[in-house]
Amino acid sequence: MRLLAQSHIANRYAQPTEIMAKVQVARAPGQTIVSETLSISPDTRVDAVELEDGRLLRGIFQGQVEVAYSAVIDLEPRIEIHAGALQHRWSDLPADILPYLMPSRFCPSDKFLRFAGREFGNVSGGAKMIAIVEWIRKHVDYLHGVSTAETGAESTFIDRAGVCRDFTHLGLTLARAGGIPARAVAAYALALDPPDFHAVFEVWLGNGWWLIDPTGLAPIEGLIRIAHGRDAADIAFLTTSGPVEQVAMTVSVAKI
Amino acid sequence: MRLLAQSHIANRYAQPTEIMAKVQVARAPGQTIVSETLSISPDTRVDAVELEDGRLLRGIFQGQVEVAYSAVIDLEPRIEIHAGALQHRWSDLPADILPYLMPSRFCPSDKFLRFAGREFGNVSGGAKMIAIVEWIRKHVDYLHGVSTAETGAESTFIDRAGVCRDFTHLGLTLARAGGIPARAVAAYALALDPPDFHAVFEVWLGNGWWLIDPTGLAPIEGLIRIAHGRDAADIAFLTTSGPVEQVAMTVSVAKI
Amino acid sequence: MRLLAQSHIANRYAQPTEIMAKVQVARAPGQTIVSETLSISPDTRVDAVELEDGRLLRGIFQGQVEVAYSAVIDLEPRIEIHAGALQHRWSDLPADILPYLMPSRFCPSDKFLRFAGREFGNVSGGAKMIAIVEWIRKHVDYLHGVSTAETGAESTFIDRAGVCRDFTHLGLTLARAGGIPARAVAAYALALDPPDFHAVFEVWLGNGWWLIDPTGLAPIEGLIRIAHGRDAADIAFLTTSGPVEQVAMTVSVAKI
Amino acid sequence: MRLLAQSHIANRYAQPTEIMAKVQVARAPGQTIVSETLSISPDTRVDAVELEDGRLLRGIFQGQVEVAYSAVIDLEPRIEIHAGALQHRWSDLPADILPYLMPSRFCPSDKFLRFAGREFGNVSGGAKMIAIVEWIRKHVDYLHGVSTAETGAESTFIDRAGVCRDFTHLGLTLARAGGIPARAVAAYALALDPPDFHAVFEVWLGNGWWLIDPTGLAPIEGLIRIAHGRDAADIAFLTTSGPVEQVAMTVSVAKI
Repeated sequence: MRLLAQSHIANRYAQPTEIMAKVQVARAPGQTIVSETLSISPDTRVDAVELEDGRLLRGIFQGQVEVAYSAVIDLEPRIEIHAGALQHRWSDLPADILPYLMPSRFCPSDKFLRFAGREFGNVSGGAKMIAIVEWIRKHVDYLHGVSTAETGAESTFIDRAGVCRDFTHLGLTLARAGGIPARAVAAYALALDPPDFHAVFEVWLGNGWWLIDPTGLAPIEGLIRIAHGRDAADIAFLTTSGPVEQVAMTVSVAKI
Repeated sequence: MRLLAQSHIANRYAQPTEIMAKVQVARAPGQTIVSETLSISPDTRVDAVELEDGRLLRGIFQGQVEVAYSAVIDLEPRIEIHAGALQHRWSDLPADILPYLMPSRFCPSDKFLRFAGREFGNVSGGAKMIAIVEWIRKHVDYLHGVSTAETGAESTFIDRAGVCRDFTHLGLTLARAGGIPARAVAAYALALDPPDFHAVFEVWLGNGWWLIDPTGLAPIEGLIRIAHGRDAADIAFLTTSGPVEQVAMTVSVAKI
Repeated sequence: MRLLAQSHIANRYAQPTEIMAKVQVARAPGQTIVSETLSISPDTRVDAVELEDGRLLRGIFQGQVEVAYSAVIDLEPRIEIHAGALQHRWSDLPADILPYLMPSRFCPSDKFLRFAGREFGNVSGGAKMIAIVEWIRKHVDYLHGVSTAETGAESTFIDRAGVCRDFTHLGLTLARAGGIPARAVAAYALALDPPDFHAVFEVWLGNGWWLIDPTGLAPIEGLIRIAHGRDAADIAFLTTSGPVEQVAMTVSVAKI
Repeated sequence: MRLLAQSHIANRYAQPTEIMAKVQVARAPGQTIVSETLSISPDTRVDAVELEDGRLLRGIFQGQVEVAYSAVIDLEPRIEIHAGALQHRWSDLPADILPYLMPSRFCPSDKFLRFAGREFGNVSGGAKMIAIVEWIRKHVDYLHGVSTAETGAESTFIDRAGVCRDFTHLGLTLARAGGIPARAVAAYALALDPPDFHAVFEVWLGNGWWLIDPTGLAPIEGLIRIAHGRDAADIAFLTTSGPVEQVAMTVSVAKI
């Protein structure tokens, strides 16, 4: 499937401000970048870093700065997680997977061990993940305006409402509490309405990563990976060293 | 300086339990492993993994299992952090350092931005770190029994008391809130009284890592690195998939 | 039913310490104090205050001080809450009941509004309370050692385990979040095993208070009221202005 | 001093919604209500309750409802708290003052005992309160938009910013942690800019209550008391059983 992903971010920086932006499509298995353009206006020097977990733009912005990105991507078909996907013992996990078993800023999985055991302790692997996602969809409302950039999985678990970031944090937390490595993924998402940067996650089962959108708002075959990390702290599309005023932001994804 | 570091951990596992142990001295600049022995009794197969952030033992333990480790280490001299150590712009940091700027499970540095700005905003780099450590030593009591494995930097900041793990979490949090990359370090520590595994941290300034013991209990020239990570979640000497009963634990470090 | 309730508290106070103790049986409808004795050794002057919400002993203790209390009580029969007990509109509540609708230290009911609406929104009054208690008993394990004096209903809701105090805080929180006035009650409890001071709660429905033991460990007809308040902060059997070392404590309740 | 206090609250209620409003000036020592008017439009039956801690309006609102209140008040002079105001032992406090020593929803004073001891342990009574207020003014920024209706004193202590409600919660928390009874007060405030309902607090020292505005934004001699309670949960100008959309709100206080 060939997709056109575009984003345009216009912000105003009162002071010279260090920025880290993750808006470029990742070079990753299953997705091929056919072409892409990045423009920053006014023209500002940025440092482009290719990391294992995504591509990063770094620089110092001042005044109104607009970042426009456009990419044509070929996506290979993806398979939905299935109940038979095998959960590995810790000893059988590749070493670079282990950090994704650990609690993180917004995903204190160590506090959910008993809950995960009670609710999902009788299943394993893919069946456990499917049960976790069903639990989230049944018990949490998708609602804007109830969470902030400081909201973690504990609050969402109590408040029972949130947006894609919150659903993802709860999914990550319950997966890890159930012994399944899980990491957050930032993505462009086909058919997401309204269009926006999307937060989903993936779990390591049966010697591979499986993408999951716990909100169910976007089909996984239309997700274009930007970056991954332990949670939202690692995959923000924009991190700044100081205050920033948003002027405009648009995201779009279309079949072409 | 040549040191002998030893640890002995005896635990009882009612069920077959997955374990990850970090007790072996790291292969890292500044410390040379002259000799070492590891014995597990009863004899149990473990998988030894050499990671960039430390060496890991993985296995499945059942019944009473004892892990005994002994190493002779040559430590090169270390330099205390000094006020002139330069703080880098994000753009000038090596890419693999960037994760240590981010908030983590026990170090929600995003909540401390204003505090860090108010208290330490007028200094930078080494001078800022020295000010942070002085603040912690002045405002936090070293006390056993007031914190648990779930205690994070917020609680310690309010409660004003804790142990080495808590001092380290507060140091990591305030460093990151002040724009300085910081990571937790597990160590054997000469002259720590009572002897125990020690938690300290290090910050990236002037293109290098500087070790800091925020408790001031152990001289940094006598610290033998075991592992590093974002916070205590990453560097625990023992992580288990289920309950465990501690039978005995001893740690010792001596000049030889 | 005639009961003999006894408590004996022996503590050591390194410094002269202000204390407030609530160990005396309350003068309240449904329970008659046939006889009682209170002795403090060594003999220490205490101020006995009769409050609407319980009887209070105040004084300044130093060294080892023992408080021994014994009372013979006649308890009238009590009725278990039934599904038909009517929930009142705020406008129809006596004014002195209103504070028990509000969130308190350990019962942040304002955070549970959506959960209460989702889980218990289709029932009202006694039926709602019965549903809440069934939910707690089904989803929370009675376990010692997982909670502390700082644990509130949020932690218990996540951790799914606790003791009588934690069950009561969760019951209070969910009742208030569902619009039902609820207050904590400290009690001597017949048949509680092991014997201890017990924490239960009561809700205002159908123009009266209904006692509920969310743990189900003690029959409500054997509860002897000591004090009530918003949560555990108000009904502690002992509050001190400084550190105290517990030497011994026994509680007993028996039919006579 | 004769003051005219006025408030006008226009809200829209999609469903019939239970409301409790505290907008009327309290009948309290030091302030005399010369005249007052209350109008609700459209005309809606409300129940007016005179409580010890303030006057309460209760009713069921639907559609757009406006509550307009106007009062002419004679205020007697008030004295600022002075360093010599005596702190009482618990045993010497009137019994109805004791609840104001306890932690509450937004004021977990039990978590701040060590901090209060370290920072303010060398002073007592009025001198301690003056030190607490100075600490707050020095360490906390008055800023809109950083706190919400769920923000408690812990967050404000970490974030070091907030509005009158947050300053008051921190003042209440530190006073109680220092052994001083303290309660929240809702008030009309002369010279508050921009005009709004104001949250301040008062402490019990030297056998009387002393009003304190921790923000320093309004002179205490121009405060007209509406209600008091343990914290903001008790003194909200409007509590509703369901969602409400604010249409307009104005508050004004003037010398006449």
